[in-house]
Amino acid sequence: MNGDRVKRVLCGMRELGVTDFLLMDPLSILYLTGQDVRPMERFFALCLRGGGRPILFANRLFGLKEDPDLEVVLHSDGDPVMALVTERLHRGNVGKLGVDKGMPARFLLSLLERWAPEDLIVASPAVDLARGVKDAEERERMAASSRVNDQAMGRFKGLVHEGVTEAEVARQLLDIYLELGAEGFSFSPLVAFGANAADPHHAPDGTILKEGDCVLFDVGCRKDGYCSDMTRTFFWRSASEHHRQVYETVRRAQETAEAGVRPGVRLCDIDALARDVITAAGYGPNFTHRLGHFIGLETHEYGDVSPADCRMTEPGMIFSIEPGIYLKDDIGVRIEDLVLVTEEGCERLNRYSKELEVLR
Amino acid sequence: MNGDRVKRVLCGMRELGVTDFLLMDPLSILYLTGQDVRPMERFFALCLRGGGRPILFANRLFGLKEDPDLEVVLHSDGDPVMALVTERLHRGNVGKLGVDKGMPARFLLSLLERWAPEDLIVASPAVDLARGVKDAEERERMAASSRVNDQAMGRFKGLVHEGVTEAEVARQLLDIYLELGAEGFSFSPLVAFGANAADPHHAPDGTILKEGDCVLFDVGCRKDGYCSDMTRTFFWRSASEHHRQVYETVRRAQETAEAGVRPGVRLCDIDALARDVITAAGYGPNFTHRLGHFIGLETHEYGDVSPADCRMTEPGMIFSIEPGIYLKDDIGVRIEDLVLVTEEGCERLNRYSKELEVLR
Repeated sequence: MNGDRVKRVLCGMRELGVTDFLLMDPLSILYLTGQDVRPMERFFALCLRGGGRPILFANRLFGLKEDPDLEVVLHSDGDPVMALVTERLHRGNVGKLGVDKGMPARFLLSLLERWAPEDLIVASPAVDLARGVKDAEERERMAASSRVNDQAMGRFKGLVHEGVTEAEVARQLLDIYLELGAEGFSFSPLVAFGANAADPHHAPDGTILKEGDCVLFDVGCRKDGYCSDMTRTFFWRSASEHHRQVYETVRRAQETAEAGVRPGVRLCDIDALARDVITAAGYGPNFTHRLGHFIGLETHEYGDVSPADCRMTEPGMIFSIEPGIYLKDDIGVRIEDLVLVTEEGCERLNRYSKELEVLR
Repeated sequence: MNGDRVKRVLCGMRELGVTDFLLMDPLSILYLTGQDVRPMERFFALCLRGGGRPILFANRLFGLKEDPDLEVVLHSDGDPVMALVTERLHRGNVGKLGVDKGMPARFLLSLLERWAPEDLIVASPAVDLARGVKDAEERERMAASSRVNDQAMGRFKGLVHEGVTEAEVARQLLDIYLELGAEGFSFSPLVAFGANAADPHHAPDGTILKEGDCVLFDVGCRKDGYCSDMTRTFFWRSASEHHRQVYETVRRAQETAEAGVRPGVRLCDIDALARDVITAAGYGPNFTHRLGHFIGLETHEYGDVSPADCRMTEPGMIFSIEPGIYLKDDIGVRIEDLVLVTEEGCERLNRYSKELEVLR
């Protein structure tokens, strides 16, 4: 158990009026207990209790580490799992029961046989907000993951050559990450040439590179469990004046937003810093997504840098800053760094250059 | 829309007493509508209705194909999605509302503001049972995926050489699948040497191959969306008499179970065919898992070949037959094929040899 992290979640639970909280997100359980389990369709849950030791409900097939701070309740395939859970939860004096936002209906509807809907509440914000503020160990790991990503980007651009396809480039990325010490991708990498980059979610296909194309890499790896995520947009052989102007607009938006990151700023205001630059250049409608997302054990964690999230930044928050301009049938440019809010201001976790770079 | 598949699900809904069914499994939605969406944390649901056109609730960011048989209700990030859904569902005369077994609590608790818990029911069996019986197009694709897997196994064993580690072998598998025309893995591949194979879920690590080790590959790919899954256990340079005896026991169990597959047999009885062979040889306690699982668009689909599932086989069912014997600190042997229940009996989708093979 990581006592400090558990304390922060318990504090969040109190704010929500929750005495017991049944977490089911395996990464949240990893975050709190260090137990690294991929339960698949099997039941795996951690019950944090305002009073008393946490209880871990686990299948016998999972390889658990010993932990005296944790009470473990094991079950086998075919056991009536939810009966086990409700029995344990009913022992004490449970007030409002917090459930995981992702708790699947097949489990939740069983709880409703014993609890009234009004006694259940999604308590995930308690752990999501804790995970959103990284402690020292996590900051270190996030920085290390992004260092690998910086190195990797330097090698990825070398995979680009005349006649290559997006898919051919994409399938070479994993080996480079593994050689650099990562465990694997943090998400399926995006490699997009030319007009394909105008779709922010384009999956690499058989498109062949041609002169004047942009070459967008949106890539990340997982290192010691923590995710990186960076985007760079290069050009192949030449870049038109118009494309250069689009690129520089995105770059200005990105750097303007980064320069505004420090503790005590509203996330929506950081979004506005970038959006205003792009809007002033006439491309407002072509920046079609939020400016950034939180990241840590998962690539997309709770928390947006967007007009919809007006929480204040705090030291330890790590999120992406990734404005883009998407011009259908023409080009897409996106530039993305991860940034850490520090006590003093902001630390960029990515150092790979953002100068416009024409590959040859 | 695939009208035949929808009809089968509607029939299952009637049996459950469900008039409307809100599906959220993206693969079930793909199965029924052909809409291939990875919604991540965004809301994506298909409502099948006893009367009227199905409704697809989707985020504007998803790239949907046009389909006149489908009513599409779009939303944007930040919209009150569940209000949209409950409004549409309340228009008609909804009796019992079926929900997806995986519907996350964050959505389900919103439904409970309008529906009493007793008016909600997990209706996933209606679609899961339909998916468990493959139609002609699916059988074709499943066979094609396993053909690739057979070819791949022939090449995987060639990666094994003196001094190699499990991880080094594992990281070369993807390229072979891609070269053979697969889209990627259907699950993270298992490569286990020697005693590591005694853990059925061992992840490839830095373990170095040594003479006399078993070499277990549990691998599968995805081809045209459909999954393959096969296990073979080889030996490196030599195999002791004891290990040969273990191998032949597993093989006999595997082949005995396969020989018993035909329509109208109980799944639990197929499990028993293999389990009895292993038990008679004295290894009963060392066969620690179910004999098999259903497979299709996902590697693990609803349906077990285990003592717990006593449904009858039907033509079109595809599942794995994968007995194993696990001896701690010594060896693990597992042999796995996929089989298709046909009108006449059974068709093995894997043809790769099960003869004991000593690699050199």
